[in-house]
Formats: sequence, structure tokens, C-alpha cells
Amino acid sequence: MDEQQPQAPHAHRAGGRAAKRAARSARSGVSMPFITRRIGHYEVLDEDGLALIERNADTILAEVGIDFRDDAEALAVWKAAGADVQGERVRCPPGMCREIIRAHAPAEFLQHARNPARSVPIGGRHTVFAPSYGSPFVRSLDEGRRYATIEDFRNFVKLAYLAPSLHHSGGTICEPVDLPVNKRHFDMVYSHMKFSDKPFMGSVTHPERAQDSVEMARILFGDGFVDPATGKPKTVLINLINANSPMTYDATMLGAAKVYARANQATIITPFILAGAMSPVTVAGTAAQTLAEALAGMAFVQLVSPGAPVVLGSFASSISMQSGAPTFGTPEPALVLFAMAALARRLGVPFRSGGALCGSKIADAQAAYESVNTLLPTCLAGVNFVLHAAGWLEGGLAMGYEKFIMDVDQAGMMHTLLAGVDLSENGQAMDAIREVGPGKHFLGCAHTQANFETAFYRSPIADNNSYEQWEAEGSQDLAQRANTKWKQQLAEYTPPPLDPAVDEALVAYMTQRKASFPDSKF
Amino acid sequence: MDEQQPQAPHAHRAGGRAAKRAARSARSGVSMPFITRRIGHYEVLDEDGLALIERNADTILAEVGIDFRDDAEALAVWKAAGADVQGERVRCPPGMCREIIRAHAPAEFLQHARNPARSVPIGGRHTVFAPSYGSPFVRSLDEGRRYATIEDFRNFVKLAYLAPSLHHSGGTICEPVDLPVNKRHFDMVYSHMKFSDKPFMGSVTHPERAQDSVEMARILFGDGFVDPATGKPKTVLINLINANSPMTYDATMLGAAKVYARANQATIITPFILAGAMSPVTVAGTAAQTLAEALAGMAFVQLVSPGAPVVLGSFASSISMQSGAPTFGTPEPALVLFAMAALARRLGVPFRSGGALCGSKIADAQAAYESVNTLLPTCLAGVNFVLHAAGWLEGGLAMGYEKFIMDVDQAGMMHTLLAGVDLSENGQAMDAIREVGPGKHFLGCAHTQANFETAFYRSPIADNNSYEQWEAEGSQDLAQRANTKWKQQLAEYTPPPLDPAVDEALVAYMTQRKASFPDSKF
Repeated sequence: MDEQQPQAPHAHRAGGRAAKRAARSARSGVSMPFITRRIGHYEVLDEDGLALIERNADTILAEVGIDFRDDAEALAVWKAAGADVQGERVRCPPGMCREIIRAHAPAEFLQHARNPARSVPIGGRHTVFAPSYGSPFVRSLDEGRRYATIEDFRNFVKLAYLAPSLHHSGGTICEPVDLPVNKRHFDMVYSHMKFSDKPFMGSVTHPERAQDSVEMARILFGDGFVDPATGKPKTVLINLINANSPMTYDATMLGAAKVYARANQATIITPFILAGAMSPVTVAGTAAQTLAEALAGMAFVQLVSPGAPVVLGSFASSISMQSGAPTFGTPEPALVLFAMAALARRLGVPFRSGGALCGSKIADAQAAYESVNTLLPTCLAGVNFVLHAAGWLEGGLAMGYEKFIMDVDQAGMMHTLLAGVDLSENGQAMDAIREVGPGKHFLGCAHTQANFETAFYRSPIADNNSYEQWEAEGSQDLAQRANTKWKQQLAEYTPPPLDPAVDEALVAYMTQRKASFPDSKF
Repeated sequence: MDEQQPQAPHAHRAGGRAAKRAARSARSGVSMPFITRRIGHYEVLDEDGLALIERNADTILAEVGIDFRDDAEALAVWKAAGADVQGERVRCPPGMCREIIRAHAPAEFLQHARNPARSVPIGGRHTVFAPSYGSPFVRSLDEGRRYATIEDFRNFVKLAYLAPSLHHSGGTICEPVDLPVNKRHFDMVYSHMKFSDKPFMGSVTHPERAQDSVEMARILFGDGFVDPATGKPKTVLINLINANSPMTYDATMLGAAKVYARANQATIITPFILAGAMSPVTVAGTAAQTLAEALAGMAFVQLVSPGAPVVLGSFASSISMQSGAPTFGTPEPALVLFAMAALARRLGVPFRSGGALCGSKIADAQAAYESVNTLLPTCLAGVNFVLHAAGWLEGGLAMGYEKFIMDVDQAGMMHTLLAGVDLSENGQAMDAIREVGPGKHFLGCAHTQANFETAFYRSPIADNNSYEQWEAEGSQDLAQRANTKWKQQLAEYTPPPLDPAVDEALVAYMTQRKASFPDSKF
């Protein structure tokens, strides 16, 4: 845990009263800053199984090795640490990476938001939901599928800000392809800062863009950026560093990782794996390879900047063995997810995986089946940082407006599920059962009246009316109701207050930097 | 366990080879007769929490009591057993019902199918999927929503027979409202016998209809009906006995339960609860009441016929506190389900709950989100008999043709999930990782080639093609693809062989019985 304990309704594992308060907050549309689970983690492997995967990961690191490409500094770091470096191939004796990580990496840390009430603890029993990341396209019922713009990006930052069940503003929610590739990051980072006060992610597509993200964060947080107790920057950015699976890290990602690690900003080291193409076709093989790659990446970060926050990431999908296309919401990736969550806990680092993933092009039943088949394992496994919790369509190629609203509703349900069973006297409700008795109904009893408002999760978009009423209201499907909802939310959006001087300084920084080099498509 | 051990791919908790064989069966469209889980049960309550719910159930049985209505024999049975009977109210001292059940009820039993390869064990680590039950309406993309007919009923029996992931033919899949109420059961039971060779359910709407179900089963099984070892009928029917919650059993259900119990046929004793209306608005209160009602019902069955198979059933949904409408796929019923599954295991009886429940009127994203939010907890909790695994729409008011096909696909995925992680040498795939190494791909490696066919669950209806291909093929949603699929399946259906003499005897029985009393609307 970082130096500051967040003050949140869910911060304590307490009895029924806290659960009730949390439930009431969720239902009244008030954001909870994060989830602290009160139910256990689901495990698919026992001690022997987990130890087997760990041994296999060690074997991969020792015998096969990991390539660190086009980064002489990285190879020098590994050599100095005692690894066997042959060309760009790095091999580590069994246990070495694990020891480095355990010696330095925090088990849990706080990512600060500019609004301190929205800071999020990453790790432990906490779960943080963030929007999807990286889509070049957006999709809506009105326009179908088209390339994303910075206007879409801002829209999704606003929608995430308004979503009571999302705790985080995310990163590259969609690619603003109307802006030059090498300057997009300014507008994306600025949008997170300006249109939301939730925590967010920095740019990773070039070390300089990572540095820009840090500099803008320094401006945003001002005097609060450096922690007086440690003299180090507070962790205010969390950043997605993908391995180039199998068993490869490239210079771009390594460069960004080094920038962030040295600035005490968090990195999520994520082997991005379509099993069958980038890893073996089996769950145990994919888990061992994921662990090996993540161990190498996280150990590298700790060698560069001991104590810098790192998160073990796992993105595992299967592929269609007919077409090679990625598939989502299938059972094998859920098994990988359960296994990896347990392995991260054993290692003692926070875990990122899952989300509301799907392969469907549209917000139909396929999208929904697949999304829950990922999100529910995500939550039961105990994922700490859930990227892609809302909006994901088409294997990540498109960000859906309606899908976003639908997924936000699902994320809301997860708050209630993870709060577990209230066993307080009120939760037991024995007075109600005594009062009502056989053959009567509970609608009017004192206990029901007292718990009326917080009783059940209320979906803002599900239709549970009578068939006749649903028909009279136009026989809408869920996507149509979600369409109404996001337009209404954008129309009603008001931004969180931002000190005008800070805003000016951010704009000045961007303007100066943008003018200092030409636009580029790379 | 009953006298006969079924021979099934999943019958042993073995290593990777059995898993692989099972996976191959699932993928090749061959029915697996049932699932035997290789992963653990998810628990939301610890020992103390479960013991608290049990104590509260005992308190309800001792202090509040259960009404057994319009059935003097039932009251006499309770009085003879030592219960406190006041009018129709039955109160049992703490522990009494539990002791009766533990003394007599089997922890697991075999439901025989006319095709012995399709007999299903109910209980233990087994899971059996059956279609939805009880809808007066059907829905398809072609016709929208209309009243169900016997033709629809036959269609769904055929579709369930063809579904590799459904192990059971179910019962009242939909209400054939074109037939007289008091004679429908003949055609329903006959349809299960004629158009499928999977196990099925009997009629419960009147004791005489239960008796007709037993008599037709006796004809179907012929010499095999009575077990020579015990002299008792084999268990060939499983039957849904709902409590009239709160805390009431009515004469119809009690009458049917007695008929089945005395014929050694299985009963599923299910408190059917819309929490907030028929139980308190809390998870712990609903669980305690469900357990109390189920304990009373199961103990009653054991008093009537000691050793007759019983299943602890739980159907719990929440309601909208605004409209009073039932809601499905919300988190609270999932918590009830997890709790009840653990309570059934502690009691030592098989458990029925869950399914693919939803409130949506159509096979849209709402239906899918809600269905997985029920089905996945159903499977992770360890439900043994999963009624409503396919087809459910509109809170059970409509049986959906497309929804059925979509849910069957989901049920198929659950086979893979519950098979867990293959930790065999082939499953570990270390040779593949060694062969491929950093920066290469796994598509062509020897391990991938060897495991190509069984590698991942294959959905027959999900679209994972490129966006362009999907668009070229008409931009169909999942429901449209499912529509094509069910029509194709019905067109290709061929019935399982049935001895013509048995068929004639069944028809003769029905003809004689139907002619012996007038049609009625009740």
C-alpha cells in the first residue's frame, strides 16, 4: 500500500452497514471510487498446479529466454543483474526474476487522481474498472462503424466520468485518427485531465510521448506531484506496456517503461496473447508463457527503478483454428484468467486482466454473452485493474457507444456481487419472515419498507416491464435504450472544476511542444 | 449413487487424456451424457455464514412453521413423525427435517433414460442441463410472440435431442395451449418418449397426471422398469414440485409429490421465490427461507417414501422495487444461488437451480447479459440439475427458438470451463514453447498441429470473421444466425429408434385414457 489510505465507502471489510451504504451509493448513481471485494477468489488450480506453472515459467526464462530488442541499455541492465545475455536473448536462472520483484515491487499502491476522493488503490482486494483501450473505430446505432476522432475520445472520457461504476478514465479509449499520430497523445492526455477528475493512463507509443505524459501530470498536480515524505513523484499515471509475445519486448515499449519507472509511475506489464498464434493452444502452456514474459518485464522495471509500481498483466484470447481470427468470451481464456490471478497473488503483485471483451461487431447478444463470459470471471478471479471494462467491440477494433452504456450497467452489478452477502441482523431479515408468515407477501412488511431503496441492484437500461408496456413503448432492444441513454448523458454533462491557471499551463505546454516538431503519421 | 454407474467420458476425475477426449466429443457435436466437473465450487459464505443460515432455517421451521394446505394425509404424516401440527401449520423442532433427509435421501442417484448411454447421475460433481420449462408463449424472429402449441413442444424436444450440450429433454418445455389442459400431459410425455431418447420429466399439475406419467414410463421401459435388485421401480422421471412460497405447500403439488415418491421417482422440491414479494428483500433472508421450505418438502417426501430421490431446488429472482416486476440476471439471485449450492452440499442432497434466465422479451443483448449472469454462477456454484438451461425469455413467459440455440452454445462452453485446466504434459505444452521460441508464431508447430482439432471451444453461431466478411454476409446479428440454425436442425432431424410395439402401447394407453374423461380447461 502506498503512503495514503484512501477514504472510501468500501475501504474496510466490515459488516452489513458498510455493505448497505455502499449499495445505496451505487444505486443513487454516486460513484464509488473503487471496489473492495468481500467475497473470495475463485481458483481453478490447486497448490500443485500453480507450482507447476511457476516451475514451467522458470524453465522458459532459464532455457528459452526472452528477447529484449533494439535496446542496448536494457541488455546492459540484465547483464549487470547477473542474467545470461546472448545477443538480444536474456536468460535468467530459476527464481531470479521472482526474487527481484518480491524484493522491490509494492504489493499494492495508490494511483492518485486530481480529485483525491477518486484516487484508486491498485492491488489487494480492490478492483478498479477502466474503459476499453486502443480502438481505431467507433460504432453507434446512428452512424454504424467509422474511424474514431478526438471528439469521440472526449465523448468517452465524459461518459466514463459520468459512469458511477467506472473508477478510472482509462487511456487510449479510442484512437483519434483525425490527429497526427505523433501528437495525438497531447490531446488524449489533456482530455483525461480536463473532462474528468478520475485517474488515467499515459502514452506508451514512444518514450518521448511517455515523457510528455509525465510532464503534463507534473503540471496538473503542481505542488502535489512530489511526495514530500519520499521525495519521489506520486504515482499519478498507470501505463500499458505490452510484451511482443512470444517472449519478446521491443524498444518502444521498453523505452516507455523506463521513462515511467524512473518517474515512479505505474506500468502494467502485459503479455498480449492470442493463444494458438502467440502461445501454445493450451491453458497451462499459455499461463506459463504469460507468467514468464510478465516476470521478465516486471523484473526489468524493478532493475531500472526499484520500488516503482508494477502490475502483472495478462491478456489472453483464443483464436478460431479455422480462420485464425481472435475469439472472445470462450472458456479457455477464462481458465487462463483464473490461473493468472492466483499466480499474481502468489507473486505478491497487483493483477490486470479481463474486461468486457467480445468478438461481435455489434452490440447484440453475441457481444453480451461474450462480455459477461469475460467480466464475471474477471471479477470472481480477483482482477485488480480491469481495463476494457466498457465499450469493447470487434476484438478491440471498435469502441461502441451503446456497448459502453451496456457494459457500465454490468460493471455496476459487479459492485453488488463483490460486496457479498450481508449477514447482519437486517440482512438475515428474520423479523420480516416472522411478521409475514406462510401464504402472505412481503411487499408491505416493515423490513421491506425499511430496505426498499437499497434492496436490489437497479439497472438503468434493462426493461422489466410487462410485455404489453414494452410493446407500447416501441419494442426496443437493449442497444436502442442504451442509445437514448448516452445521448442524454452527453447532453447533460458538466465538467469537473479545473484551476484555470493549470488549464492554461497545460495548453501552453502542448502548444509549445506541438510546434517544436513536424506532424507525422508514425 | 444409484446401483448403476454410467459409462461416460466424464465419469472419472482423470488427467489430460480424459479431458481431451471429452473436449473432442463436445467439439465434434457428439453429445456428452452429462458433465463431471473437474474444478472447484465457488463459495460466497464461510462455515460460520452457512451455519447461521441453517440455524435461521431451523428457527423458521420451529417458530413460524410451514402450511400444508388441503391435504389431511400430509398433516397426518407430519403428526406421526412428531411434528407440531396446528390446523394446517406444521412446525418441526430444530434439526428434525435435516435428520429425516440425511437418514433416507440419496446423496446422488441415476435417472435412467430409455437409451442407457444417456442416463444421467444427479448429484455429486455432476451437472445436467435441461431446457426451459413452463412458458405459455413461444417467440421466433419469423413469427414474433404467440401462444405455444404441441407442434412447438415437439420442435423443442427435437432441438434438445439434437443439442450436444443438453443432457436432458426437460418437462413442460412450453405449454401446448392448443390442447385441453387436463389432457396435455399425455402428448407432452409422449413427445419426450417418441422424439428423444434423453431422460425427461413427468407431469405435476394433478396427482392423476403424475400417475399417468408413471404408467407411460412403465410402458416405455417395459421389463426394465423395475430394478430386480431392489424390487422397486428404477428412477426414470424427475419432477418439479414447487413450494407455494412463502412457507406453503398446496394439495396439487403434494399430491403429485406423493405419487412420484411412492413410485421411487425423483422430485425436485423448489421454493419458487421472487425476493421482495415472496421472501425478504435480502440474500441471507431469502436463503434461510428457501432452505426452510425445501427442508420441509424434502423431509415430507422421505416420510412418505423413505429413500425416494429428492433434489433441493432453489429458484430465486429479485423484483423491481418500482414496478414489482421480476428481474433476472441481477447479482442478488447469484449470491442466493452460491449460498444455496453450498447448503445443499452440507445437507448431502443434489441441488437444482439457475439456468439461462432473463427478463428480456427478445433475444437481444439484455437477454444474453442476464442469461450468462445466471448460467455462469449456476456452473461455478455446482448446480447438479440445471432446468431452464436453454430457451428462456421474458421471465419464463416465452420460449425462444433463437434463444434456445444461443443458450445451447453457452451450455457447450460450460463443458469446457468445468473440465478445468489440463495439466498433462501435452497440456503444459513446454515442447511447443521450446520449439517456437521468441518472436515466432505457434500456428505451424508440431504441438499446435497435434491439438488443432480439440484446441478451443468452437461456437457454431458466433461470428469471428473479419468485419468485411461479416458485412458481405449480410451484417447478421447472433439471433439471425441462430434463426438459420434451428430451421436447419429441424429440417435435418431424424428420430431415435423406438420399438413399434412400445410406441403402439403408449398410443393405446393415451387413447384409452383420453377417452375416459371429458376435456377441461383446468
